[in-house]
Amino acid sequence: MKPAGQHAKQPARGLTRVLEVKTARRTELVEITREVEKLVVESGCQSGVCHLHVPHTTAGITINENDDPDVPRDIEAALDRLVPKDGPYKHWEGNADSHIKSTIVGCTQSVPIEGGRLVLGKWQAIFFCEFDGPRDRQVNVKIIRA
Amino acid sequence: MKPAGQHAKQPARGLTRVLEVKTARRTELVEITREVEKLVVESGCQSGVCHLHVPHTTAGITINENDDPDVPRDIEAALDRLVPKDGPYKHWEGNADSHIKSTIVGCTQSVPIEGGRLVLGKWQAIFFCEFDGPRDRQVNVKIIRA
Amino acid sequence: MKPAGQHAKQPARGLTRVLEVKTARRTELVEITREVEKLVVESGCQSGVCHLHVPHTTAGITINENDDPDVPRDIEAALDRLVPKDGPYKHWEGNADSHIKSTIVGCTQSVPIEGGRLVLGKWQAIFFCEFDGPRDRQVNVKIIRA
Repeated sequence: MKPAGQHAKQPARGLTRVLEVKTARRTELVEITREVEKLVVESGCQSGVCHLHVPHTTAGITINENDDPDVPRDIEAALDRLVPKDGPYKHWEGNADSHIKSTIVGCTQSVPIEGGRLVLGKWQAIFFCEFDGPRDRQVNVKIIRA
Repeated sequence: MKPAGQHAKQPARGLTRVLEVKTARRTELVEITREVEKLVVESGCQSGVCHLHVPHTTAGITINENDDPDVPRDIEAALDRLVPKDGPYKHWEGNADSHIKSTIVGCTQSVPIEGGRLVLGKWQAIFFCEFDGPRDRQVNVKIIRA
Repeated sequence: MKPAGQHAKQPARGLTRVLEVKTARRTELVEITREVEKLVVESGCQSGVCHLHVPHTTAGITINENDDPDVPRDIEAALDRLVPKDGPYKHWEGNADSHIKSTIVGCTQSVPIEGGRLVLGKWQAIFFCEFDGPRDRQVNVKIIRA
């Protein structure tokens, strides 16, 4: 489940690093744990918090299991059932459901850093959540030292 | 969609600033981007994180699009469909749905700051989410320097 | 509603403190406000942010009311209705719904600290959210000074 085309480019603004994510399907959870971890190691931060921010309104970010790839697939399907693409929506672009999913999942996460590494549970992976793909997307990564 | 009556008052406790928000409907997303941005500029913080915290249990905070005001209206309607006002609830006050919506949307957000400004995507706006209005509400804004 | 068996043990990694939480039911909100507040006071932090991170993929963390214990019960029941235990899931372990609930509620929260105390609204309580209990669980608490 390691998607192609993800890499960290130089900081867009000051100390915020930007991860690039390519998505392939309309609703898709794409794991980015390794890419985030790489930025944490590069930062040299030993103790702090890693803030993740998705600058899109039809996407989100979550932390969940990827050991069984059926888990992200079940999350995608459940969100599509709860908020169907076709509903009694007013927004003219045909992606009202994508905006609603973004608000339900959320577009920011804050993960502790200790010993120069992300503090994640054994089964936790970080996922970019695409709700209106396929698209080229970004994740802002901002590290605050303790 | 610029609601009246929003302004920053002096810090309630130390360095946390408080935004006042007046809501007009039971379920209502009210944009507060400009008010939060003003506090960021006033703080003089060039690089850091802006933490937003809603101190209410029947409200939330989200980031989404407001270029087309139909987007927040669709989000309001979708949440009201997913969690109807009248359900098999135990809570006696008639606003169990409001509490449930608060947990689904969440009451905290953390947005990066660079160059003295919030790092928001082109279409991103910050919304106070009222789920049991109309009421006078608050948003705590806490800025952490990098 | 004060569950037994919750206490702070020594830091697992550096400055992140770990709260232990025992859950008793499959879906259960367990209040941990007092335990988190104790860590904030012990830290001596007067102004900052308290980051809460649940290192599990079938659990979450939320802030809501516990003055009427029917509120967390209503939240539990509503999540079980929105994401039923038995659904058209692929994940083989029988807890796909628990993973989905974790993504909907979220596993991180960031609460301001002022005057050496958590900045919480009058009715706000912090809840560990169990979605696949009963189990022994943890919450990582990371305090960042302003």
